[in-house]
Amino acid sequence: MKDEALIPAKIGDNLEVMSIGFLLPEEDSAVIWRGPMKYKLIKEFLEDVEWGELDYLIADSPPGTGDEPLSIAQLLGKMNGAIIVATPQEVAISAVRRSITFCNHLAIPIVGVIENMSGFICPNCGARVDIFKEGGAKKMAEKYGIKFLGKVPIDPNLVSAGDEGKPFLLNFQNSETAKIFAEIVRSIREAVEK
Amino acid sequence: MKDEALIPAKIGDNLEVMSIGFLLPEEDSAVIWRGPMKYKLIKEFLEDVEWGELDYLIADSPPGTGDEPLSIAQLLGKMNGAIIVATPQEVAISAVRRSITFCNHLAIPIVGVIENMSGFICPNCGARVDIFKEGGAKKMAEKYGIKFLGKVPIDPNLVSAGDEGKPFLLNFQNSETAKIFAEIVRSIREAVEK
Repeated sequence: MKDEALIPAKIGDNLEVMSIGFLLPEEDSAVIWRGPMKYKLIKEFLEDVEWGELDYLIADSPPGTGDEPLSIAQLLGKMNGAIIVATPQEVAISAVRRSITFCNHLAIPIVGVIENMSGFICPNCGARVDIFKEGGAKKMAEKYGIKFLGKVPIDPNLVSAGDEGKPFLLNFQNSETAKIFAEIVRSIREAVEK
Repeated sequence: MKDEALIPAKIGDNLEVMSIGFLLPEEDSAVIWRGPMKYKLIKEFLEDVEWGELDYLIADSPPGTGDEPLSIAQLLGKMNGAIIVATPQEVAISAVRRSITFCNHLAIPIVGVIENMSGFICPNCGARVDIFKEGGAKKMAEKYGIKFLGKVPIDPNLVSAGDEGKPFLLNFQNSETAKIFAEIVRSIREAVEK
């Protein structure tokens, strides 16, 4: 891998993506790696991918405060900040409090908190059901003095768009959920660019 | 920690639990650990916890095929097998296929696959909505010749029971979801004890 440049996948006109999934020999290949191998790959993703000119580089981390976010933080050094994504129920919020502590320890500024899976509208009767409760991430953000960026509802179209590899925002651009995403992006840019 | 025995938390008459969460100084303490520290703690959980006589020891792993399941597999050596839990949508199934490859590489037998978040019954109108699709894990199990253990629906009572620390099976023992759990446990015991 060392001598070859890694070319990111291009989606639409202004989004490029790189993932370990693109580099696996088979669809079901397992990446049975301990931390040092993960560190090495993250380093290559930051240094050897032909990103070209970027406005933003977003690293999507797995949940937790382990090797991956730690490696990203150490390799990137300076960054605009972390965006924390939480589901509303108490056990998830408790995990997210630890992510906030993680950011504080590593002196990473926190851009804000997004509440994901926040409520579900029944497509049959229109009733709103808060399957994973609602509002927990917002309350937590207020308690810690962190900006609350918005609530993303449970939307089956998000699931199918992901499965079919069709970006949700290109295919459901007039949906309520897309408007919520646009508002969240506006808040993030406002926080990052000021 | 080395010289003290670790006492597991007791829930009801026949369930004991140990978690790193019990050992943290504060509720929001972050565990900023690379793999070797995780390995050390998993080793202590297996060797230094006063489990007493156990019928089953169940290790709940985070998603993925990294340090934690690898350490557990190496430390435990012989085990009855892995129970794979998947949500139904394609992107989740694809991650689970890698877990199957992981088990095969490490010669861990697979007890079976459970489909979690499999369908939602609207409490208002009773309609069934397959938010994360449905049946994907079952199809995958058939394809790989793995036993399919059952489908756990999305049930808001599961969320609240977890948040309140009240075991779902003690507090909603007559619910449809509890019956599904009982059936899954029966299938697992049948597979493990034969």
